[in-house]
Amino acid sequence: MKITKPTLLLDLQKCKNNIRKMADKAKKNDLIFRPHFKTHQSIEIGNIIKEFGIDKITVSSVEMAQYFADAGWKNITIAFPLNPHEINEIEILAKEINLNILISSKDSAERLMQITHKELNYFIEIDTGYHRSGILAGDISQIEETITLLNKQHKFIGFLTHSGHTYQANSTNEILTIHQKTITKMSLLKNKFISDFPELITSIGNTPSCTLAENFGNVDEIRPGNFVFFDLMQYNLGVCEFEDIAVCVACLVVDISRERNEIIIYGGGIHLSKEFIMQNGAKNFGQVVKLNNTGWQKPTEASNLISLSQEHGIINASAELINEISIGDIVGIIPVHSCMTANLMGSFRTLDDKIINQFSKSEHN
Amino acid sequence: MKITKPTLLLDLQKCKNNIRKMADKAKKNDLIFRPHFKTHQSIEIGNIIKEFGIDKITVSSVEMAQYFADAGWKNITIAFPLNPHEINEIEILAKEINLNILISSKDSAERLMQITHKELNYFIEIDTGYHRSGILAGDISQIEETITLLNKQHKFIGFLTHSGHTYQANSTNEILTIHQKTITKMSLLKNKFISDFPELITSIGNTPSCTLAENFGNVDEIRPGNFVFFDLMQYNLGVCEFEDIAVCVACLVVDISRERNEIIIYGGGIHLSKEFIMQNGAKNFGQVVKLNNTGWQKPTEASNLISLSQEHGIINASAELINEISIGDIVGIIPVHSCMTANLMGSFRTLDDKIINQFSKSEHN
Repeated sequence: MKITKPTLLLDLQKCKNNIRKMADKAKKNDLIFRPHFKTHQSIEIGNIIKEFGIDKITVSSVEMAQYFADAGWKNITIAFPLNPHEINEIEILAKEINLNILISSKDSAERLMQITHKELNYFIEIDTGYHRSGILAGDISQIEETITLLNKQHKFIGFLTHSGHTYQANSTNEILTIHQKTITKMSLLKNKFISDFPELITSIGNTPSCTLAENFGNVDEIRPGNFVFFDLMQYNLGVCEFEDIAVCVACLVVDISRERNEIIIYGGGIHLSKEFIMQNGAKNFGQVVKLNNTGWQKPTEASNLISLSQEHGIINASAELINEISIGDIVGIIPVHSCMTANLMGSFRTLDDKIINQFSKSEHN
Repeated sequence: MKITKPTLLLDLQKCKNNIRKMADKAKKNDLIFRPHFKTHQSIEIGNIIKEFGIDKITVSSVEMAQYFADAGWKNITIAFPLNPHEINEIEILAKEINLNILISSKDSAERLMQITHKELNYFIEIDTGYHRSGILAGDISQIEETITLLNKQHKFIGFLTHSGHTYQANSTNEILTIHQKTITKMSLLKNKFISDFPELITSIGNTPSCTLAENFGNVDEIRPGNFVFFDLMQYNLGVCEFEDIAVCVACLVVDISRERNEIIIYGGGIHLSKEFIMQNGAKNFGQVVKLNNTGWQKPTEASNLISLSQEHGIINASAELINEISIGDIVGIIPVHSCMTANLMGSFRTLDDKIINQFSKSEHN
């Protein structure tokens, strides 16, 4: 494989294994599996997911919904609060496919009633503790008023939540505690509204809980996204094994400072994103792996990216790495946040040298 | 102007004023002005720069050099350490235009000697204190050995440095101190080597020093890039006025949490980048401005972006803002780092509603 510039490598076997595990877990727990496609943004990876019998997906924008509808997906939830400025596009798409939109407050519901006369399927977004968007799980009166208002015209599908605060957890136990609280809150809502809406479903998201949890209570649907690739953040949270991470950015060694134990790579913020994790008081923008013919391998001593400019990356190298590295070598960087990295890179290269394109660099975006 | 999704607005008048000021300063100080094009990455903004009599530019990758060479630029410095894997592309380009490459160590020079038999023009990168890449200004023996080696085949143009540590400065005085040290170090090198290389030039970069400094010693060339737009980081450093900032991301209000004084916008890390500045112990990912027909206006009370997900942004709103905001409103976000934001957005929309495309979403990238 000829690599001349920063290249996002994809280990398809690891990716398929990750998908299989989550699909199996969904089946075992009798859950609808509606994976979030914002992580891979790719028609080809979507096709792999389809092979596991999946026909419902989640996206994070109207344009991304259009992209995957054009690729043949017929059941899509846009898990992002309604953007009133895109109501025309939403109406058009809702005629073509089974589309669910997200209403995250009564104010948003009122706005929807003002701007359309079409019938749309909607989830109500519930805030189970992340406090980004959604109606607080305990705010029953707002939930009731929102449903009453919208059901004059629209179809209530159920309650949807994203417990993104799992990403701030300090242990896997804390993630599971958040998950337990989430499914308890969703269960209370389900039990309260199910008699009036016998078909309503509850939907939860996020890779940390869906990966770690074995108990999903009476939740009906899961929407993890990141699990297809995982990344350094998930590994650091204890959610996956290092060997599960399916993407890595091949970067080119352009200089070496042996005095500072630093390696300068072509691979910067426009490739990896500026996302970092804190480890022992220092920023880590990515971890170095050795590349070989069959993919990549974790070195015995960790070397991390300590700084990123637009195109430059600086690796604080282990003794092992600095001793064997030369200008022109290619190293792998396990990204901190694979969703952001994939979005920036715009395409993947598989280990058998096939290019997989995605939405972010398509004409749809 | 119809805005339905996050849109990078460009105030061309402010941009032209920023270019004019820097061009005037270069002329006044008898400096070659070789602006860095990695900030705007745009042929149209390049054309505006050309109107000021500029015919030499800086880029940060071989592909970006190809992009601007195709657009008619005939004198380009790639201010990034030589990537040996792109030597073929470099050789081809060097036949077509006046191309300068960057050699940042003796090791890199040795590598260059191994991989090409063509003559190339090169700068030696000098580390004047940033410690990212380059030969330390005081390491005269490595500099001499590098020139001696390379001059068997290649043409020495001069010394180039980027004092990126100005971005870590705590005051404009500290920036000027760094600048003074930089030009002193570059001057010592120039004086030492000028008798052997009477045509050598010294080249310095970075917007903070080039904007603030009035004294450039015997420096020959400046390569600022960010100054065309500036951003919140530059404003925070005291480098520009708020009114000088020429770009802003129009984002859509999709929900409001009046209990938390928060506004949820369509506008996230894939639009603005995850770059932040710390202010009063809190992360600031961007500052809100009010949009009107003639551009944007700084509100009397600051409201900042305190959190970014992939598509979501959360604004901690001032009392003024929360009282007047509604779902569906469009707010402007002054980005923390305009280079990263422009790269992500891929195009600009001018205030008179023209689209300006750029490199990052072109077929060249």
